[in-house]
Amino acid sequence: MNGKGVVASGLYLKARIIPIPKSISPEAQAALAVGRVERPPSPPATDKAAWRAHIAATNAGFLAMKKAAPPPPARSTLTEIGKVPVYVGEPDTLPPANRDKALIHFHGGALVLLGGEPVRYFAADEAAAMHGKVFAVDYRNPPDHPYPAALDDGVAVYRELLKTYPAHKIAISGVSGGGNLAAAMVLKSRDLGLPLPAAVGLFSPEVDLTESGDSFQTNHDIDTVLHGSLADSNALYADGHDLADPYVSPLFGDFAKGFPPTFVQSGTRDLFLSNSVRIHRRLRDAGIDAELHVWEALPHAFFGGAPEDRELHVEFRRFLARVAGWAKP
Amino acid sequence: MNGKGVVASGLYLKARIIPIPKSISPEAQAALAVGRVERPPSPPATDKAAWRAHIAATNAGFLAMKKAAPPPPARSTLTEIGKVPVYVGEPDTLPPANRDKALIHFHGGALVLLGGEPVRYFAADEAAAMHGKVFAVDYRNPPDHPYPAALDDGVAVYRELLKTYPAHKIAISGVSGGGNLAAAMVLKSRDLGLPLPAAVGLFSPEVDLTESGDSFQTNHDIDTVLHGSLADSNALYADGHDLADPYVSPLFGDFAKGFPPTFVQSGTRDLFLSNSVRIHRRLRDAGIDAELHVWEALPHAFFGGAPEDRELHVEFRRFLARVAGWAKP
Repeated sequence: MNGKGVVASGLYLKARIIPIPKSISPEAQAALAVGRVERPPSPPATDKAAWRAHIAATNAGFLAMKKAAPPPPARSTLTEIGKVPVYVGEPDTLPPANRDKALIHFHGGALVLLGGEPVRYFAADEAAAMHGKVFAVDYRNPPDHPYPAALDDGVAVYRELLKTYPAHKIAISGVSGGGNLAAAMVLKSRDLGLPLPAAVGLFSPEVDLTESGDSFQTNHDIDTVLHGSLADSNALYADGHDLADPYVSPLFGDFAKGFPPTFVQSGTRDLFLSNSVRIHRRLRDAGIDAELHVWEALPHAFFGGAPEDRELHVEFRRFLARVAGWAKP
Repeated sequence: MNGKGVVASGLYLKARIIPIPKSISPEAQAALAVGRVERPPSPPATDKAAWRAHIAATNAGFLAMKKAAPPPPARSTLTEIGKVPVYVGEPDTLPPANRDKALIHFHGGALVLLGGEPVRYFAADEAAAMHGKVFAVDYRNPPDHPYPAALDDGVAVYRELLKTYPAHKIAISGVSGGGNLAAAMVLKSRDLGLPLPAAVGLFSPEVDLTESGDSFQTNHDIDTVLHGSLADSNALYADGHDLADPYVSPLFGDFAKGFPPTFVQSGTRDLFLSNSVRIHRRLRDAGIDAELHVWEALPHAFFGGAPEDRELHVEFRRFLARVAGWAKP
């Protein structure tokens, strides 16, 4: 190492302790104080039975947590749209301006986890947060249904909804792995000649399965929610397809061919911070109306129940009001 | 330490090596490959003679570098406005829409360094980059002129320029310590009852001299330009005033009382990343039109001569075109 911290493979960093900052809400501080979320190791990609058990255990844990929590002011109903199961979330109070609007939502879970019954909860949560009607797609997952099953499901739901909603009344959003699908299905729908939706929301989006961004290194182990690489589940999802294909990693899409106004969110501790700032820059460089919003000290996705999370919902509703005619927050 | 990485004082991080990412331009990769910029230690706050020598040596080094570099397509002329020395930068080619516009600019240098002759170069660089007429304020610095001298200089220049330019033709920008002054002088001008300028640009701004943001920890030693705390120069600047006073740390200002549309910039490796995302959030929460732009793997301020830097200039000109009637890039 030279005097400038440089070693052959990069910049050397000493061991350190990162304090919990006072610059965030007490609720957010409490979330960080828990430390790194403990996760069982991923099974080998070839062991499908082990993956099914891993997914079932994760989903059961999520459901137990949600069943113990107070329900949001919204209901959630399972239906089928374009032959894809979709949970329709409707808030108890729907502002008049939002009555003719639809939000197609793709849940998080690294493209592998949290399908099925958990989506019932995501639909209700999103409907309550967004004050709008939410179509939460229960897209298919690996190991039994790898790429392009989930992407095809997203396009099928959009294509079917276009029969009852004009494109300019439809917005698309996704969190984490769902942010991948939200961006990829808009790219694919555009390439298929379908009309563009009114708006897109990408929340801490997993838009680069090659994990080429700098924050995969700089925020490694600093992000307490996603500590490090998701290469195992990414390989399971891609199932041998090129990880850099724009439908697999929409960061590498050609946005200059047309893309809707897009809201991009992240946090300074987010493992996917680079995903967010890079797709924002690519959209801007292509001349797309795109907003970037980054929250202080936030790891991947959300703190959970903190004022910062509510602020995010207000900000996205403000965006939908500006670009897509939704009710003003 | 428990299994979640938690120790009494925070989150424990092992020693690590951060590679140079492939997700940025070759020029930006080369800038990161240099490693941490070596800086002499700051003198004690009470040793004014040592500070004067430290400042003189830094400024001489900067001037030697600039004199060796090819000049930008702009000229720079020293004048006096409101009894304050100002270098007026004018680009060789001034687009018609920008002929009646003025950009008041505050240079970087931690509020202490790079005053005097270096400002001649900043004025020309900014004029060339922004395609507009730039009034680069050679504001006074400690140790001889601590707070509020620089802030008073900024307000004096603005007040005087208002005699020849209407407020809606004036924009204000600043880099690093200059971003502090840009934000603080707009807050103070507003409080004095002066009209608001058309737009503000804050580049990797040092808006929080208390250094309460999380990136002062997470990007410590990752930012190769500013490795760590600037507490020494901050104390020299504040000269006993409360570091949390909104005129000293404009992050803590009340933006709901009115603030112009604001462009905020940072990088994912920036020590001041938290400064940028926090002031963006405060502006948005106050209902202000504010854009956030964060560059991948960028340390404090700019790479220097990289495509990313040119992209930033285009983005700020696009912002000024949208909110202040400047020529479209």
